Amino acid sequence: MTAQIFLAEMLGTMTLLAFGCGVVANVVLAKTKGFSGGWLLINFGWGLGVYSGVFVAAQSGAHLNPAVTVGLLTNPNATEFADGVAANFPNALLYFAAQMLGAFIGAVVAWLAYRNHFDHADTETGAKLAVFSTGPEIRNKPWNVVTEVVGTFFLVFVLGAFDGTPNGLGPLAAGLLVVAIGASLGGPTGYAINPARDLGPRIAHALLPIKGKGGSDWGYAWVPVVGPLIGGALGGLAAGAVFV
Amino acid sequence: MTAQIFLAEMLGTMTLLAFGCGVVANVVLAKTKGFSGGWLLINFGWGLGVYSGVFVAAQSGAHLNPAVTVGLLTNPNATEFADGVAANFPNALLYFAAQMLGAFIGAVVAWLAYRNHFDHADTETGAKLAVFSTGPEIRNKPWNVVTEVVGTFFLVFVLGAFDGTPNGLGPLAAGLLVVAIGASLGGPTGYAINPARDLGPRIAHALLPIKGKGGSDWGYAWVPVVGPLIGGALGGLAAGAVFV
Amino acid sequence: MTAQIFLAEMLGTMTLLAFGCGVVANVVLAKTKGFSGGWLLINFGWGLGVYSGVFVAAQSGAHLNPAVTVGLLTNPNATEFADGVAANFPNALLYFAAQMLGAFIGAVVAWLAYRNHFDHADTETGAKLAVFSTGPEIRNKPWNVVTEVVGTFFLVFVLGAFDGTPNGLGPLAAGLLVVAIGASLGGPTGYAINPARDLGPRIAHALLPIKGKGGSDWGYAWVPVVGPLIGGALGGLAAGAVFV
Amino acid sequence: MTAQIFLAEMLGTMTLLAFGCGVVANVVLAKTKGFSGGWLLINFGWGLGVYSGVFVAAQSGAHLNPAVTVGLLTNPNATEFADGVAANFPNALLYFAAQMLGAFIGAVVAWLAYRNHFDHADTETGAKLAVFSTGPEIRNKPWNVVTEVVGTFFLVFVLGAFDGTPNGLGPLAAGLLVVAIGASLGGPTGYAINPARDLGPRIAHALLPIKGKGGSDWGYAWVPVVGPLIGGALGGLAAGAVFV
Repeated sequence: MTAQIFLAEMLGTMTLLAFGCGVVANVVLAKTKGFSGGWLLINFGWGLGVYSGVFVAAQSGAHLNPAVTVGLLTNPNATEFADGVAANFPNALLYFAAQMLGAFIGAVVAWLAYRNHFDHADTETGAKLAVFSTGPEIRNKPWNVVTEVVGTFFLVFVLGAFDGTPNGLGPLAAGLLVVAIGASLGGPTGYAINPARDLGPRIAHALLPIKGKGGSDWGYAWVPVVGPLIGGALGGLAAGAVFV
Repeated sequence: MTAQIFLAEMLGTMTLLAFGCGVVANVVLAKTKGFSGGWLLINFGWGLGVYSGVFVAAQSGAHLNPAVTVGLLTNPNATEFADGVAANFPNALLYFAAQMLGAFIGAVVAWLAYRNHFDHADTETGAKLAVFSTGPEIRNKPWNVVTEVVGTFFLVFVLGAFDGTPNGLGPLAAGLLVVAIGASLGGPTGYAINPARDLGPRIAHALLPIKGKGGSDWGYAWVPVVGPLIGGALGGLAAGAVFV
Repeated sequence: MTAQIFLAEMLGTMTLLAFGCGVVANVVLAKTKGFSGGWLLINFGWGLGVYSGVFVAAQSGAHLNPAVTVGLLTNPNATEFADGVAANFPNALLYFAAQMLGAFIGAVVAWLAYRNHFDHADTETGAKLAVFSTGPEIRNKPWNVVTEVVGTFFLVFVLGAFDGTPNGLGPLAAGLLVVAIGASLGGPTGYAINPARDLGPRIAHALLPIKGKGGSDWGYAWVPVVGPLIGGALGGLAAGAVFV
Repeated sequence: MTAQIFLAEMLGTMTLLAFGCGVVANVVLAKTKGFSGGWLLINFGWGLGVYSGVFVAAQSGAHLNPAVTVGLLTNPNATEFADGVAANFPNALLYFAAQMLGAFIGAVVAWLAYRNHFDHADTETGAKLAVFSTGPEIRNKPWNVVTEVVGTFFLVFVLGAFDGTPNGLGPLAAGLLVVAIGASLGGPTGYAINPARDLGPRIAHALLPIKGKGGSDWGYAWVPVVGPLIGGALGGLAAGAVFV
């Protein structure tokens, strides 16, 4: 795998996270123009973050998500991660690294863009973490895992069906699927549906000198990693069985 | 008709209902992140559920809805349900079965994803049913039927015009039509416009061990079956007469 | 011009108005599921009504709007209203008739779909008219005309640029333009930007046996006719001068 | 460079600003139908303003934004601003002039469309300026510059990736990217991300006889000029380095 592929996957994931963490910052931090802007705003921010990131990561196949990479490993119909990049475990590890690094950087970028609002006295401690990482509205880890499995399953399963229906949507196709999953299945846990999306920014939250930040909720951190990996693996298997 | 066709139609309808019931759960159940997120959020959730389900059900022609199947029976221009699947009554019965089964399973999936929120003490009994099945804001069955007839008529009639205008929207074309119908004609009854979408989940509501659930409102259950079937039949007839 | 062309234009405009009046009904009538659903919901309802109507009226070129027809008359580059239909004044009169008839019928359909909500005691008299026809928030007829001229100018001017940029959006291209105009220029007068869209339903409001309806505000009725006709004529002239 | 190119760029930017200033007017001026309509409404108004303006400015390559022009200068892969228009500094100055003139005129058009609402006693002085130009929610010029740099960087960087992924979105591709940036990175400063978009209307605000207007906040005016120019230059450099 070339450095160009690694870079593309990293920059695409960075773009996704800059936009995704950004829209959450806009809705939850004090004194922003989008404060309390609603769930659909968050859904479009993340979905169009995927849309933008897919353009950026064209060369790497634009996984942007370890669960998507895992889904290609478990899907017997998928032989390549991108043009000329074999779908195998060593390459997957490189994708994971690129995704984690990109997610970390993207979260830092969002923090820089919203710096004044993180520092504002009216911003709550919990909101500062919410910009970076997901957390459940009702904490019940086994069921939180189920929710993440379900959301990620549909992400990878429906992505697996994309080749079967030609259309001119390009990167918008995946973006709208993520709008859909957020609107429909994101209510309980905030739809990580992507281990890098959650863990990379959580590490950024832990490391960055964010004024008045609280803990990074490491007790929950495994849920949005394990759930999406299971969901992605199942989604890839199902896609491989159903879509020929 | 092959098992592959049956499976595709079933899984596409399952996807539609997982997303559709999911977005209602997100808006009406207590403590979700999308609670009280508004009508447009619901419209996009259902519309993008159609969008996602159409990808999944490409092999079966992606009816996802008995009213669409009926509209193809009444439209003299339509000779096939999908490539190689004749548009006739025996095949229609198999489509109905796949749609009902998929709708039932999709509703169960949404319930699993929102399990904690169904169980929460702040969730009202009526909201629990609303996740599964439609109900009118003003109960007046003859006029509720009229509303469902009108909405489903436009669904099937406009679908019948799709072939006349080439575009690159793919599954998004149908998804946006459903956003439109929900926004515009869904206000009185919640736009079942699909017998399987309403009856399959209503059966799920009746059978599932949902904590603190009330009745399944069987007295209304015929309205979102009969109205859509009439509307679909009329829409197919009109499309056949107008679009050559 | 064939009866088929007349019928297509009529049915497309009917579809537009059923959806457009429908979304306003959903937002302003008492007890609907979309009550107070916001301006963006209204914008998407009308925009996707255009989208749906354009599919239906493919054979007539889908003007759906006398101002668009007038813009094609004043645009020297436009020689046809549709394939085989010359752009001339006699044909324009037939288009106007089809558009008015379709708009009237579409408004009646929306009224039928929302019948229970028109009859509800909590629905205000002004809301009943608002479903059918536009009215300004600040009544100042000369400036209300200006607003309608501006909105319709951009509709016809930008439509005139569509041929210069290939895309796969199909009917969505016009639908999104109407979402844009509504969001941006619809705030003062409610963006008739279409004489048939306003006058046809106003006649329906006057004739239909709507429970507890008030007057049809005939004193304002010329504004959303004259403004759009001027705007459409100017837009066609400008498009003819700029887009070669 | 021909007058036709200058005119196209001017009219495209005029369209963008008429729609963009228009949607802000709709949300912030008293008594409009979209008053307090939310951030997503503003995002769609600006994004679809870009979409509409790109159609209008097809002949000039539809920059609509000096930061985009600068990004093409700094991107070594870009040799033309449009078909037959070399990417060089003298041509850039002509583009800047067209963009500034178009932005000024577009803002005047929006003011005319919302004239009654500017004059209304309930409209606040600050809202009158907000229709024309951006202002930060927390005034901290160095960090406000950072936010504008970040937003414009992603605009120009992702635009630079567009050629790498074929799609049928046409002008919608750029429009959705601007929806994304507004939703995600627009919260602190209101996303000028375009020097002409901010400065042209600010001059209009200073010159127009707007009833009860206050100052034009010239002390902040350099921020949404300098930030976007830096961001655009960096975005073009990065795109040139990454996308081959």
